[in-house]
Amino acid sequence: KAGRVWLVGAGPGDPELLTLKALKALQMADVVVHDGLVSDEVLDMAPAKARRISVAKRKSRHSYAQDEINRMLVAFAREGLEVVRLKGGDPFIFGRGGEELEACREAGVECHVVPGVTAALAASASAGAPLTHRGSAQAVTFVTGHAAKGEEPDLDWEALAKANQTVVIYMGLSTAAGIAARLMAAGRAGSTPALIVENASRGDERRIATTLAELAGAAEGLSGPALLVVGEAMALAKAGGAPAAVQPLKVQGVSE
Amino acid sequence: KAGRVWLVGAGPGDPELLTLKALKALQMADVVVHDGLVSDEVLDMAPAKARRISVAKRKSRHSYAQDEINRMLVAFAREGLEVVRLKGGDPFIFGRGGEELEACREAGVECHVVPGVTAALAASASAGAPLTHRGSAQAVTFVTGHAAKGEEPDLDWEALAKANQTVVIYMGLSTAAGIAARLMAAGRAGSTPALIVENASRGDERRIATTLAELAGAAEGLSGPALLVVGEAMALAKAGGAPAAVQPLKVQGVSE
Repeated sequence: KAGRVWLVGAGPGDPELLTLKALKALQMADVVVHDGLVSDEVLDMAPAKARRISVAKRKSRHSYAQDEINRMLVAFAREGLEVVRLKGGDPFIFGRGGEELEACREAGVECHVVPGVTAALAASASAGAPLTHRGSAQAVTFVTGHAAKGEEPDLDWEALAKANQTVVIYMGLSTAAGIAARLMAAGRAGSTPALIVENASRGDERRIATTLAELAGAAEGLSGPALLVVGEAMALAKAGGAPAAVQPLKVQGVSE
Repeated sequence: KAGRVWLVGAGPGDPELLTLKALKALQMADVVVHDGLVSDEVLDMAPAKARRISVAKRKSRHSYAQDEINRMLVAFAREGLEVVRLKGGDPFIFGRGGEELEACREAGVECHVVPGVTAALAASASAGAPLTHRGSAQAVTFVTGHAAKGEEPDLDWEALAKANQTVVIYMGLSTAAGIAARLMAAGRAGSTPALIVENASRGDERRIATTLAELAGAAEGLSGPALLVVGEAMALAKAGGAPAAVQPLKVQGVSE
């Protein structure tokens, strides 16, 4: 039997934000190759006998280069295994899933993609602030704040500085000061509402409602995975902690 | 006991793309107020005794105005009911969820938001074409192609015409010709890869891989809910039909 690779979005962190399809894929996995951001509760949904391999980039002694991960996925599939590549959020939003899919295609390995709830959706849901909104957010753009050390992200500041749109910056904590300065220099008002969400959807979620001018100061001291969200609709955001759990019902045979 | 409103994303169509949290919210619903795009398989996950109310805008003799929906949600919650407002995709991506949340806040009604897999994520997963990709898609923007009859969408064409980004147009089928013409006039190459996905993630999903120059012609004859996706990374897209189901395992107590 030929093995297959499943690129699966694990959602933003809360195990309840896994999709049913992701859960089913996990339950049939022979091997789970996962990021550091995927929680133990989610990993526990795979069969006990499934091999688990962390290729974490965060808080890890060893992290794998992307081409090592690609080769690993192909090699396991060629052994005839069902390989679940489990990624935080959605595999195709800043998850480098496209590179893994290309590696599978080049190797002739069957590969399927299971979408997931990307962190921006969880952050806006928790905050009660919509990413699009009549009159104040006609579009939403996702960018990454990641940049080589000492450099700044290569983004289209003019486009992102226009009013009436929401800009979500993934991995932007360490470059927040530069991003805010560039957006204001390009014309976005310092008074534009902004939101920082650390550990979106997790028990230790923290939300800070601020403004673009105050963004860099508000980001200081945060270290967890975080999103920066800038836009007029963030005026609706509520600061605070973790979102409400759905109680008291539990899905039979699924949770706990 | 005070009632509550849950703004719940039902995902793109495939019932398996519901999150566990959405499923739990549905299972405790006293009343489900849903869009026309939500499938019967999803509605069947609510208790048999739960009242179901369609406020469909599509294929419906009667459709409710937004302020009627807002009033309905508040009124049910004031009766002490658990009210699930079930929306296709994610409640805060072109779902007008922000307006419903504001109505609840103004009325003093407790309101929670459960994020969902928005259609763009499902479309890119099915097509095997990432929305962000090293070297060809450094950002992704979601806009709506919706416009008043005879008018064109009010979008920032200059920003959307820049290369190396993905633009996803929700509800853009009827305005596809104008959108493509505007993007090309603003400088986006006619050879830019494009993808149309009708009924993303459903059994009758259809994907057409094309280019920006050919987009309008390719959109002709389609009538279902569809996304237009324009960007260099769509060169990876595979045309075709519905995505693979996860077989043969089923989640105990959840599906079927």
